[in-house]
Amino acid sequence: MTPSATAPARTGRARRRRAPAPAPVGVGWSVSGLPSTPDGISFTVRVRGHLDRRIRTLRPRCDLAASCRHQQEKKRKEKDKPLTKWAASLPSPPSRPTLYSLKPLHQQGKAAPPPFSAGSSVPGPLLRRLPPPCRPRSRSAASSAAAPASAPPAGCPVSSFAPRCAARAPAPAAFRPPRAKGPSPISGETLAAVGEGTMASEAEGQWVLMATGRSPTNIAVIKYWGKRDEALILPVNDSISVTLDPDHLSATTTVAVSPSFSADRMWLNGKEISLSGGRFQSCLREIRKRARDFEDEKKGIKIKKEDWEKLHVHIASYNNFPTAAGLASSAAGFACLVFTLGKLMNVKEDYGELSSIARQGSGSACRSIYGGFVKWCMGKKDDGSDSIAVQLADEAHWKDLVIIIAVVSSKQKETSSTSGMRDSVETSPLLQYRAQTVVPSRVLKMEEAIKNHDFESFAKLTCADSNQFHAVCLDTSPPIFYMNDTSHRIIGLVEKWNHSEGCPQVAYTFDAGPNAVLIAWDRKTAALLLQKLLYYFPPQDKDLSSYLVGDKSILSDAGLHSIEDVEALPAPPEMKMHDQKFKGDVSYFICSRLGAGPKAVADESQALLDSVTGIPKGVRL
Amino acid sequence: MTPSATAPARTGRARRRRAPAPAPVGVGWSVSGLPSTPDGISFTVRVRGHLDRRIRTLRPRCDLAASCRHQQEKKRKEKDKPLTKWAASLPSPPSRPTLYSLKPLHQQGKAAPPPFSAGSSVPGPLLRRLPPPCRPRSRSAASSAAAPASAPPAGCPVSSFAPRCAARAPAPAAFRPPRAKGPSPISGETLAAVGEGTMASEAEGQWVLMATGRSPTNIAVIKYWGKRDEALILPVNDSISVTLDPDHLSATTTVAVSPSFSADRMWLNGKEISLSGGRFQSCLREIRKRARDFEDEKKGIKIKKEDWEKLHVHIASYNNFPTAAGLASSAAGFACLVFTLGKLMNVKEDYGELSSIARQGSGSACRSIYGGFVKWCMGKKDDGSDSIAVQLADEAHWKDLVIIIAVVSSKQKETSSTSGMRDSVETSPLLQYRAQTVVPSRVLKMEEAIKNHDFESFAKLTCADSNQFHAVCLDTSPPIFYMNDTSHRIIGLVEKWNHSEGCPQVAYTFDAGPNAVLIAWDRKTAALLLQKLLYYFPPQDKDLSSYLVGDKSILSDAGLHSIEDVEALPAPPEMKMHDQKFKGDVSYFICSRLGAGPKAVADESQALLDSVTGIPKGVRL
Repeated sequence: MTPSATAPARTGRARRRRAPAPAPVGVGWSVSGLPSTPDGISFTVRVRGHLDRRIRTLRPRCDLAASCRHQQEKKRKEKDKPLTKWAASLPSPPSRPTLYSLKPLHQQGKAAPPPFSAGSSVPGPLLRRLPPPCRPRSRSAASSAAAPASAPPAGCPVSSFAPRCAARAPAPAAFRPPRAKGPSPISGETLAAVGEGTMASEAEGQWVLMATGRSPTNIAVIKYWGKRDEALILPVNDSISVTLDPDHLSATTTVAVSPSFSADRMWLNGKEISLSGGRFQSCLREIRKRARDFEDEKKGIKIKKEDWEKLHVHIASYNNFPTAAGLASSAAGFACLVFTLGKLMNVKEDYGELSSIARQGSGSACRSIYGGFVKWCMGKKDDGSDSIAVQLADEAHWKDLVIIIAVVSSKQKETSSTSGMRDSVETSPLLQYRAQTVVPSRVLKMEEAIKNHDFESFAKLTCADSNQFHAVCLDTSPPIFYMNDTSHRIIGLVEKWNHSEGCPQVAYTFDAGPNAVLIAWDRKTAALLLQKLLYYFPPQDKDLSSYLVGDKSILSDAGLHSIEDVEALPAPPEMKMHDQKFKGDVSYFICSRLGAGPKAVADESQALLDSVTGIPKGVRL
Repeated sequence: MTPSATAPARTGRARRRRAPAPAPVGVGWSVSGLPSTPDGISFTVRVRGHLDRRIRTLRPRCDLAASCRHQQEKKRKEKDKPLTKWAASLPSPPSRPTLYSLKPLHQQGKAAPPPFSAGSSVPGPLLRRLPPPCRPRSRSAASSAAAPASAPPAGCPVSSFAPRCAARAPAPAAFRPPRAKGPSPISGETLAAVGEGTMASEAEGQWVLMATGRSPTNIAVIKYWGKRDEALILPVNDSISVTLDPDHLSATTTVAVSPSFSADRMWLNGKEISLSGGRFQSCLREIRKRARDFEDEKKGIKIKKEDWEKLHVHIASYNNFPTAAGLASSAAGFACLVFTLGKLMNVKEDYGELSSIARQGSGSACRSIYGGFVKWCMGKKDDGSDSIAVQLADEAHWKDLVIIIAVVSSKQKETSSTSGMRDSVETSPLLQYRAQTVVPSRVLKMEEAIKNHDFESFAKLTCADSNQFHAVCLDTSPPIFYMNDTSHRIIGLVEKWNHSEGCPQVAYTFDAGPNAVLIAWDRKTAALLLQKLLYYFPPQDKDLSSYLVGDKSILSDAGLHSIEDVEALPAPPEMKMHDQKFKGDVSYFICSRLGAGPKAVADESQALLDSVTGIPKGVRL
């Protein structure tokens, strides 16, 4: 079977509106608990499909038509947004990592696991509002309809695409769902469709092919700021980063294809976002271009190279850390998207090429394709084919380093890095000098420092380059301020300590936001650093445990077992400043370390899309 | 009479300690109300001199010896301080301009005029704490002793040194005091001396020759940051400034010489400071080198060129605005010192040369030698003789400009500009590029903009150069942060307004501190700017009048007659930020305009030194 025969035309959605598809026989389901509209009205819609496939009951508690129009309008506006701002368009991160916990909430025992998953899944905040839905038809029934009865074994070695440093990656998982379902009923558009009694194709014999991956975020120690090509995202200088441990900061993405999918769709942290932006389209186009033949004889799925173009994808992505908080969420996100799509579409395992594709999603994403220390070579070619990332050393090369991130509370609305660096290129006289004269020698020195575990040089270069990047931001018209008074205070603390010790203990670096990323040269230093930080930035409430996330064991190393221990901390002797404390100026801390590159996730229970429906787990049909 | 015969040796102070001079016959005086020592103890010392010139009554209310030791220790520490930091060593400015009012307090009716002045004088805050002192011997008696009976007429055209734009300067005033007095009893050292019964020389036939001047401060619109010669203060690039109206921001300085002075001494804002620093010594040396013969036949004073070297000077200086608050107080101070010394010592009226001397006190001081728009040409010679200031246009050239200064509250201790720029030169890779490549073209463009009243170019260059200066500070290791979140907010406000109008309405510039200097292109714009500023930064209390000082009439122009008017201000429509206000983040505003250069002060009542004793008015003998 080739998908070309069964894949719905790309105009499927329009067609659906003209000629509503019949509702499935005998399906009774309800949609409730939807988020309120801006005027504060909730819907309760009950729809029953019958043999004659007409809607028999539709009982809006309010003016449903008007509400649908509102939802459609909202949807339209969201589509019109430039997609390069996908991260920025999301809700602000919470001041504490409650919503964006480092594990999916249900794994923390804070929410019930979503009902559709075979095991656990990773619902976004929105999903959690849904009440337990009606059960869909059982998986066994669904499976028996047209596909192999059992789910594919995890870790099946079909794919040729697996990370170097990771365990052998599992093949994409394929199922034959009983019937292809329409789009998730959670969106306003679907609600409208329901209102019209519309359903998606019912064609028998369809399947969902799926892959899941996890990619780390990275923090540049020699900064990338400024593009020489906006469309291809080609930088004006090389940059070097450290990859953070994905256990603490990473994106998990599940991608799926199915002939039943009527459009490319994406959900980020449980919320559907538009995929129409140039950056997503670039990544999808480039991966599809490199897709290769795929066959799973056992499951009777065969996709030819040229057919990938015709299959729509569903993408679900989830960050285990705050999105758009200046922690390179888009780097992890795009790296994961490209890595996982590559795996799904059986793309040749060429990390350089993958990094080049990820670069077109978000420049710094190319560096998240590897673990450890990574260099993004700016390249010289006009087509950007030589603008790729390479690994300088893996995460085992310099194991001592400990990373503490201070997530700083910010009242200011920040300039997106995309528009910020465009403005810098256009208006900062210092940027070109930095890119052409300062950075090249710094990159060489940094490579040497990393190679030789020379922390003094590493720290000096890291701090100087962070400061110079922010200097260029300030030299932009209008000037860009990413750091605030709290950032300055943290720098002051580190500089004074380093100065008093005679050699650097800690390096600091700040991306396009006020958060401080502090790299301590060993665990003991990190524990001392934490003491100093908590002295000036104590938690607002008594809950020390939620004030430091990630590797919490650093608290014990610092002798901080309770809030009383924090209160008893002595003032750092090297700080001659008045004894002022700044409670509330830091939202929380993350303790992390260097980490590995992207990995395929074999455990199907970790997939974010339902293997039967191809929509995010926990979203009811 | 030549002073060489009567001037005390420079080791006079040391000699005084070894052999206490007798107290004057019949003088009964008390010292009280001195500032408390750190341990909270006040002194009341009563000393009576008798015919036998021994102390008869000394009744300390506490351990006077210990207190004296404390005072001596304090004094010693102050001496050890490098004098280049003279401004920084002063007490922090108040959050409101109560102490440092724009007029001497007694002229505002807030304090009684100091007792020693013939008319009014300009006491520092410390002086006001003193109770009315005992009267010295009457002036008529003093005058009759050895000098002409009457004070010299104000405006006497003896001096060849007068400002170009100013009224013809008065000659130095000369008197023959009855007896030369010892140092001011207000200092701890004097207290110690009193304890030992020490007094200064009593030689008859001495006189005090005096001159007073007033110099404006200036704000650079193309910034000076970085020296190519630390000792001569030679800059790495040209700079351009605007001179502010001395009615609002200026230094007033009185300098005096007398054969009775035993050492060079200086009082800043009423507090004695050391003159031993290299910068003061450079200015004194260079002015003395250029001193010329002086003769006042009427008063019988004749000073030969070579004799100026042998005469000690007393200097009293007073700023009518906060010292060390990032408002270029040292620029006004050194310009005034050099200008007034030049006047006193009959130095040839060569403004370029004077600016070159003032430069050696504080780089930017050279620009305060002129009014209006001033350029400091960096020069090329190693001896710095061509590193002088020139006037581009006087203050009448562009009268429309209105200057509003936001004095921003700062919790941070700031880096002095001297050490800051040294660090920048040593560590910032961007500084040399700025100095050699960016600034030269900006200077040319700025000169054109000023010449053509081209506000758009003027504003864009001013803002860009301020930001670039701060960018270089940030590029320094360790980084220097002069601006804080409030500074950033003010920039955001101006940038958004300028953007919404399509062309600049206001230029902003920040010196080595968080205070914003805002230049509006006319009075109407300034009134609108004030409305926007007061919307976001309302006064903390109900007193609007003390929240805006300088040219208060701008309040009426902005329709702000009371605090209720401020509270009723609408949010600036161009600001899409949330409606947050920042009460308390600005200490107060100053409204000013462009102003003239230094002027000699003819009115002897404005002199800061007593014409009889040569010590600050209001300080008792």
